[in-house]
Amino acid sequence: MSVRTDQTAAPEDRAAATDPGFGHLYAQVQQFYARQMQLLDSGAAEEWAATFTEDGTFARPSSPEPARGHAELAAGARAAAERLAAEGLSHRHVIGMTAVRREPDGSVFVRSYAQVFATRRGEAPRLHLICVCEDVLVREGPGLKVRERVVTHDA
Amino acid sequence: MSVRTDQTAAPEDRAAATDPGFGHLYAQVQQFYARQMQLLDSGAAEEWAATFTEDGTFARPSSPEPARGHAELAAGARAAAERLAAEGLSHRHVIGMTAVRREPDGSVFVRSYAQVFATRRGEAPRLHLICVCEDVLVREGPGLKVRERVVTHDA
Amino acid sequence: MSVRTDQTAAPEDRAAATDPGFGHLYAQVQQFYARQMQLLDSGAAEEWAATFTEDGTFARPSSPEPARGHAELAAGARAAAERLAAEGLSHRHVIGMTAVRREPDGSVFVRSYAQVFATRRGEAPRLHLICVCEDVLVREGPGLKVRERVVTHDA
Repeated sequence: MSVRTDQTAAPEDRAAATDPGFGHLYAQVQQFYARQMQLLDSGAAEEWAATFTEDGTFARPSSPEPARGHAELAAGARAAAERLAAEGLSHRHVIGMTAVRREPDGSVFVRSYAQVFATRRGEAPRLHLICVCEDVLVREGPGLKVRERVVTHDA
Repeated sequence: MSVRTDQTAAPEDRAAATDPGFGHLYAQVQQFYARQMQLLDSGAAEEWAATFTEDGTFARPSSPEPARGHAELAAGARAAAERLAAEGLSHRHVIGMTAVRREPDGSVFVRSYAQVFATRRGEAPRLHLICVCEDVLVREGPGLKVRERVVTHDA
Repeated sequence: MSVRTDQTAAPEDRAAATDPGFGHLYAQVQQFYARQMQLLDSGAAEEWAATFTEDGTFARPSSPEPARGHAELAAGARAAAERLAAEGLSHRHVIGMTAVRREPDGSVFVRSYAQVFATRRGEAPRLHLICVCEDVLVREGPGLKVRERVVTHDA
């Protein structure tokens, strides 16, 4: 663990303060996650998959290999939605503590926490998972897409 | 479920990227919810009601009819605060995954998730509800107000 | 409880609407908390302490006196991290409902909710605490630092 000199702001803080486009970028990133998670939770598997680049990847502890590309991503989301429906469950994904860093190659690295809440019909909701989500976002047309996502769980 | 062409960004993403005022609007919306929920949780029923327009409406599963206008909204919030106090409970409302869309008529449509946490004096907090909150916000003076709110629960 | 005249926007709403730098400031504040909480949760005690000013204070219900200054703050964070590790626990702090107000002296007052989630190895996460966090942030170099933090719990 490095001891940071107090006189020096962290690079992320410096960028957030001095980059005139930071406010806009940060809002765009938050909007992107809001839409992406709402698509996932509503079972819109193809539209959710389309928030990744054509060859985008999604790695997580429950799969030995990352899913890659729209077809695989959509198939995974559809299977998950069907499994939840069969169990009478609905999931809500909430992204928070979004730390955003512009990279020299123009991509945007985002590290955030994801809370996953599960509700069974007729029951109280419960906290299902807390994850760390590390994304490389890239611009495609005017919007953002995920090129690479790595999710890890605390449990 | 429509399959979106990958080459085309969703309208929300396009707007977030190309609207130069999007960063400011998004921050304003988040600030609005922060203040509105803190007023509600602190029992400031009249001030909370005043974050709606004069004839603003609030529909939710627990009421057959939406509450309408400041007097009804404030009465509902006061009754809820008194009920919680009598049970030794406090609530915290947390809005997340805020998806913001400017409408042609100048209003702002916001779809978000609301987490409601309940704490009984001397006990650990628990997750009480997860809701979807759909708001039409309008400008009144410099600030924002809710003209129409529809809340639905997963349970 | 004061009844606010409906025709008058709250000062916070007015500021959010009319301050051209509000979008940038709000994003900076959110980025600051994201980084600060991620440092704390990852056990980076010294780097976390350095997000306070040199004589920054942190008051909370579990301590009779506020911690003051980097050495005390870092020692507290280190002790907490070691205690959690010994119990096989990890914590995630999530700040939400961030209400931001510029003060006349140039500082920034922020009132927010903090959710603390705890996960024991091999178990499901649970909600540990909901707190109200009141911070005075000041600019130091390009970034923000906490000059004074007061945390209160509902329980």
